[in-house]
Amino acid sequence: MTDTTHSLTPGPLLLADLSSPETQDLLPQIELVLLPVGAHEQHGPNIAVSTDTITADALCRAAAALAGATVAVAPAVPWGVSWHHLRFAGTISLRQSTLIALLEDIVGSLSAHGMRRFLVVNGHGGNNAAITTAVEQIKHDTGVPLIASVFGYALIAEQAKKLLPAEAIGHGGGDEAAVVMAVEPHRAKPSAFAAPRPTGVQVETAALLRTYGGTLARRYDEVTHNGATGDATSATPEIGQQILDGAAGRLAEIIEVILREADAAEAQAGGNESGR
Amino acid sequence: MTDTTHSLTPGPLLLADLSSPETQDLLPQIELVLLPVGAHEQHGPNIAVSTDTITADALCRAAAALAGATVAVAPAVPWGVSWHHLRFAGTISLRQSTLIALLEDIVGSLSAHGMRRFLVVNGHGGNNAAITTAVEQIKHDTGVPLIASVFGYALIAEQAKKLLPAEAIGHGGGDEAAVVMAVEPHRAKPSAFAAPRPTGVQVETAALLRTYGGTLARRYDEVTHNGATGDATSATPEIGQQILDGAAGRLAEIIEVILREADAAEAQAGGNESGR
Amino acid sequence: MTDTTHSLTPGPLLLADLSSPETQDLLPQIELVLLPVGAHEQHGPNIAVSTDTITADALCRAAAALAGATVAVAPAVPWGVSWHHLRFAGTISLRQSTLIALLEDIVGSLSAHGMRRFLVVNGHGGNNAAITTAVEQIKHDTGVPLIASVFGYALIAEQAKKLLPAEAIGHGGGDEAAVVMAVEPHRAKPSAFAAPRPTGVQVETAALLRTYGGTLARRYDEVTHNGATGDATSATPEIGQQILDGAAGRLAEIIEVILREADAAEAQAGGNESGR
Amino acid sequence: MTDTTHSLTPGPLLLADLSSPETQDLLPQIELVLLPVGAHEQHGPNIAVSTDTITADALCRAAAALAGATVAVAPAVPWGVSWHHLRFAGTISLRQSTLIALLEDIVGSLSAHGMRRFLVVNGHGGNNAAITTAVEQIKHDTGVPLIASVFGYALIAEQAKKLLPAEAIGHGGGDEAAVVMAVEPHRAKPSAFAAPRPTGVQVETAALLRTYGGTLARRYDEVTHNGATGDATSATPEIGQQILDGAAGRLAEIIEVILREADAAEAQAGGNESGR
Amino acid sequence: MTDTTHSLTPGPLLLADLSSPETQDLLPQIELVLLPVGAHEQHGPNIAVSTDTITADALCRAAAALAGATVAVAPAVPWGVSWHHLRFAGTISLRQSTLIALLEDIVGSLSAHGMRRFLVVNGHGGNNAAITTAVEQIKHDTGVPLIASVFGYALIAEQAKKLLPAEAIGHGGGDEAAVVMAVEPHRAKPSAFAAPRPTGVQVETAALLRTYGGTLARRYDEVTHNGATGDATSATPEIGQQILDGAAGRLAEIIEVILREADAAEAQAGGNESGR
Amino acid sequence: MTDTTHSLTPGPLLLADLSSPETQDLLPQIELVLLPVGAHEQHGPNIAVSTDTITADALCRAAAALAGATVAVAPAVPWGVSWHHLRFAGTISLRQSTLIALLEDIVGSLSAHGMRRFLVVNGHGGNNAAITTAVEQIKHDTGVPLIASVFGYALIAEQAKKLLPAEAIGHGGGDEAAVVMAVEPHRAKPSAFAAPRPTGVQVETAALLRTYGGTLARRYDEVTHNGATGDATSATPEIGQQILDGAAGRLAEIIEVILREADAAEAQAGGNESGR
Repeated sequence: MTDTTHSLTPGPLLLADLSSPETQDLLPQIELVLLPVGAHEQHGPNIAVSTDTITADALCRAAAALAGATVAVAPAVPWGVSWHHLRFAGTISLRQSTLIALLEDIVGSLSAHGMRRFLVVNGHGGNNAAITTAVEQIKHDTGVPLIASVFGYALIAEQAKKLLPAEAIGHGGGDEAAVVMAVEPHRAKPSAFAAPRPTGVQVETAALLRTYGGTLARRYDEVTHNGATGDATSATPEIGQQILDGAAGRLAEIIEVILREADAAEAQAGGNESGR
Repeated sequence: MTDTTHSLTPGPLLLADLSSPETQDLLPQIELVLLPVGAHEQHGPNIAVSTDTITADALCRAAAALAGATVAVAPAVPWGVSWHHLRFAGTISLRQSTLIALLEDIVGSLSAHGMRRFLVVNGHGGNNAAITTAVEQIKHDTGVPLIASVFGYALIAEQAKKLLPAEAIGHGGGDEAAVVMAVEPHRAKPSAFAAPRPTGVQVETAALLRTYGGTLARRYDEVTHNGATGDATSATPEIGQQILDGAAGRLAEIIEVILREADAAEAQAGGNESGR
Repeated sequence: MTDTTHSLTPGPLLLADLSSPETQDLLPQIELVLLPVGAHEQHGPNIAVSTDTITADALCRAAAALAGATVAVAPAVPWGVSWHHLRFAGTISLRQSTLIALLEDIVGSLSAHGMRRFLVVNGHGGNNAAITTAVEQIKHDTGVPLIASVFGYALIAEQAKKLLPAEAIGHGGGDEAAVVMAVEPHRAKPSAFAAPRPTGVQVETAALLRTYGGTLARRYDEVTHNGATGDATSATPEIGQQILDGAAGRLAEIIEVILREADAAEAQAGGNESGR
Repeated sequence: MTDTTHSLTPGPLLLADLSSPETQDLLPQIELVLLPVGAHEQHGPNIAVSTDTITADALCRAAAALAGATVAVAPAVPWGVSWHHLRFAGTISLRQSTLIALLEDIVGSLSAHGMRRFLVVNGHGGNNAAITTAVEQIKHDTGVPLIASVFGYALIAEQAKKLLPAEAIGHGGGDEAAVVMAVEPHRAKPSAFAAPRPTGVQVETAALLRTYGGTLARRYDEVTHNGATGDATSATPEIGQQILDGAAGRLAEIIEVILREADAAEAQAGGNESGR
Repeated sequence: MTDTTHSLTPGPLLLADLSSPETQDLLPQIELVLLPVGAHEQHGPNIAVSTDTITADALCRAAAALAGATVAVAPAVPWGVSWHHLRFAGTISLRQSTLIALLEDIVGSLSAHGMRRFLVVNGHGGNNAAITTAVEQIKHDTGVPLIASVFGYALIAEQAKKLLPAEAIGHGGGDEAAVVMAVEPHRAKPSAFAAPRPTGVQVETAALLRTYGGTLARRYDEVTHNGATGDATSATPEIGQQILDGAAGRLAEIIEVILREADAAEAQAGGNESGR
Repeated sequence: MTDTTHSLTPGPLLLADLSSPETQDLLPQIELVLLPVGAHEQHGPNIAVSTDTITADALCRAAAALAGATVAVAPAVPWGVSWHHLRFAGTISLRQSTLIALLEDIVGSLSAHGMRRFLVVNGHGGNNAAITTAVEQIKHDTGVPLIASVFGYALIAEQAKKLLPAEAIGHGGGDEAAVVMAVEPHRAKPSAFAAPRPTGVQVETAALLRTYGGTLARRYDEVTHNGATGDATSATPEIGQQILDGAAGRLAEIIEVILREADAAEAQAGGNESGR
């Protein structure tokens, strides 16, 4: 590395920290790039609009720190597809096509430098369809060796269920609030923590369609009066740190599987090549 | 109705069967439009490339027949997003943007005539992200009262698991083959029925990412050598009919919930209006 | 062919009937793919909104049956560009850009498998500009060896003029009604057959501009009060079958010319190549 | 009019000649805007690449001069859709989508000022599909009272057939060359006038498909070796002037019909309004 | 050259004057193509809406005439991005995306014939952002050896400042009016010449942001009541000719620098190539 | 404000810090939203790829802190249009259309909540054309009361010229390095600070075209061998803080002018309204 005095450990390897020659030197070591995608959307009275960005970014940094210099983290996308939250003040929503174009540009640029494997870590459920679309399109159009996605909130919720009551789990709930308290405390609003106020409308429809792999398109004000579906009152920074540590550990395990199987697949493909 | 001699019962109400004045007369009765979306993609040696279109269409017709003239069926979209199958002969793939545009045009046209509630019934997993994107975009851009989607194959698989061995469930497997045998027998190829030939590559990665709400973008030839992941050899037309009947019954129940809750939501919204 | 027990003759070769290995086996024999494009648009009180799809599809199937396994038929596009009919209930209209994208995707996929010659058979006049645009764009962008279009309704009308009075020829008229009666009888509405009710507006303008290769953009409710411009009352299924047989025979002759001249052009180009 | 010293007669009313206040003053008188669309494409050795632009523009100016200040001429679009000529040096081709966007912007701007009726006068056959698409899209999207198109070359050819031998009619032929000689003599190249050199390839296919309302997508070097299909050797400036005068007279008659019938249609619509 | 009798000197080399074989013959000599881009937009009472097109085109022709057959001029784009002038009658505005598409198509076509260096000469400030975007996109997407732009009005204003009072310089002012008087006298309206009538609104904001490389998006009716910001009353044709001659001379010098340095850059790149 | 315990002063008002109800409460006070736009692009060996994002964001925060709660800062866009830097490792480039879409979505969302005035603060010269395009399009399409842009680097360079030698000013030079040292020290690489290594190619061309409001499209490796054009060796954190303080002060003055004149313009428009 050009700048030998600048230690990059033990923190995560952030692409934004590097100069161009430093990037060039690290390229052979980088086995995976994590692409955090967040949102800028209302989470009820409990937490800031940047919650999903904070969470996705923190998850990526923590998992990358566990992996050392082989896993790099790209700058977080600080908005997502949040049209259904637009009636709550503060929400910024990208069109799906904008988010897809962004991911195409980011992956297209980085793969031009020789980075070959990408994992989108998504902090917001409303992004899932656009990210799946982007990931598949990029694979088809560019043939990049590996591109995949994971819903980071699923990793968070998995841990939170062990540490918080069931009613805490949900949009703007204790699971998300705890992580924000741990990572960016001034973006949690404990004095405003309140129970969710669901509308009770079309509850069975939404659940049934979800069970069968579908969706009911709804604005979030049709779902909840105060913008939250989880109860944040049980959140603490300590629980948040435990959730984050657990989720990052799980993500690190997933990354290990991804890299191990990708190496195997390439070795096999190479064997096939040379065997021809 | 203009044409009193033309009995539309007891079969399903197909929009394609109607003249324009007939449609006009039926408009007040139509409470929901089903939009079957299929695929034209390889299903291994076992069944025709039109399998997912056949399945989605049959499911809609059967469920609509149970519902009478209140539920109409639009012409099936006979292709889907199948880029990952393009290395297998015969597959036609739409770009995601093409499928989204198609759904916008279809729903936009029908809602201009006064149809107000739409359920996309999707026969092919590769369409899910594009359909979710379309459904949400249409809701946001047009404010149509109800637009939702269901993954029809999930309904099929649920029934098939009761009637077929576990290894039969999967792409081009016994669950799909049985339904094709029941509905369009000449599009099943029993003399070619074969066991799936999975590659075994990146199996754990794909499963893990799916568990956590994500996806690994892969071509299907990276997944299976013969294009199938399910074993079709146990399929029979009788089982296919049972699967279809069961799935259509379940879909009819879902439709009942959708309509009941949508009526309630509108009554409540109306009450709020009048109460102001 | 993998499935020797499944006889594909003497009916037409439908791509939707084939499994992927069957398609693979037939590829060397397929000299031309017919792409029927229809519409889902009002045809007055006389016939169903699916008329143009029925007609284009029936024409392709009948012509392909005459040609044997060398001519394949793709699934019909069941909607078209029908914005001018949207004020009549039931009409679905694609934007021109959607239809163009669809044709690009379909031809792009099939030519990736090695199919090399394509003929779009169009059942609806409103599609002609979009289809010409698509056909030329596909030729320019992909260099596919042969892509062409024919207006199937012109083939129908040519035959109908021999068998029906002049006033029967036209939109929703006896020519179209007869074919529907022959092919899908329940989609003709003989008890509602009525004379057309033209508005008489801008008749000379439209005729003059058509004569000089132009067009007057009009909604169809500016042209006719009941949605039809032809008189359906003289239609019978027998005449419909005669029209269809005559038109299919003519289309088969055209296909023969296309294939003969395309072979000659390729032989000549090959000769030029080898002579260099 | 603001500028009383500037006489606009007896020449045609060109929008490009006017200041903004002059346009404002003339708005109530302008009953129709002519939009000439040309091409910048090879016409063999005989005439310049700007031929179709010259012809469309001259036709519009001559017809507008006959009509007085009630018909205005917009600046000519100096390129068209000419991808099929790109292998001949000098050709510029717009994508169809570019030409459509241009026409949308031009008509959108002018109709915002209160101009209400538009006639596209097209000098190049390759533009017809894009212009038809544009004209219909603009009608549908904006509801502009009148938008139509005419293929100006059809008007030229009609006159030329009376004055020149049959073999003179065609791309880069005597009909076009004569008009160029009359209007912009330095863009005709009489010393290079040559007979066309057709390839003879796919002649019957192209003719048959044209007869039945379709098209064979071909590059022009597949049609003719020297880029022309008409024989220019019989062209003279005098004949060119006669052709132009005849065609402009015919166009003026068409314009008269358009305006008379449009007035009648609006009067009738107004009557219907007031009668309600 | 095919047509030896047609002298192209001493005027400028216009692509529109040439037949295809003439273009082919001249290709090796053409070192640069000038692409004039204008506007069709209000310039107050003083001059016609075509002013910026006239100016850009005249500048290109005069500079090309100085350069001889090595510099060719493409047909002028007769409209530009003028949305901010749309409230003044007569203005036609292209969307930025339309102008970008146009430039892509024009340069893409000409570079396919082997033309390698392009200079956009822009007559209208509102086009600058779109032209910069187009020029950079074309460079990135096509790798054309040289593509650049110059704001022609800056060349005009530089000369005008030497010959006219300061208050004459500006939109629709004496600088532009003088050039129009010299080139297309009937498009200047001296009897209507008037002082500008600025609104005085947000003057400091606009100036400050311009100083710091930014912009305040404003409609032009927020800037001036009569559409002009310069005083045209001092304009004469003689001054116009002097401005044009001076600006064309400066442009010819710039072209000389462009060609000299481009040759040097290619020689150096070639040396690097051969030295490897 | 809902959360009374959370003091937002004296730091800048960041939208990302706020919950939705907090945003709602602050809406009446917010007079301007600053939108920092950066880049993720090589800056030679001297500083990290995130330099322009850091600079734009720091400038906005510092200026907003001076202004109190009346000026809010949106999340920085962490990439820009950097195609010309893609041959240097680490650079991420958005297409111009992606950046334009992003700005449309962000401003569209925030203005839907009632925010009315927006200032894009751009840290990267390569973004200027896309930002100007976006700002004008947004004004035209949405009529948002005020949208403007400023090139933040021009503010930085103005201060730097007072504090650093002339050769320090430039891409990756001492001006930018000093600011990075002050704000995010680990993203400056003092041990790698090096003199720029210009190629000397097309220097006069680029300067001339810039003088006359144009541009020469070039990749940055055609401009400089090591990616920098400024000399970073004289940079210190203290100078960086002085530059930042000076530039933020100047930006705060500009904001004051913007708000004062916008208030005056609205008062005048309101007066005109009420006077009608």
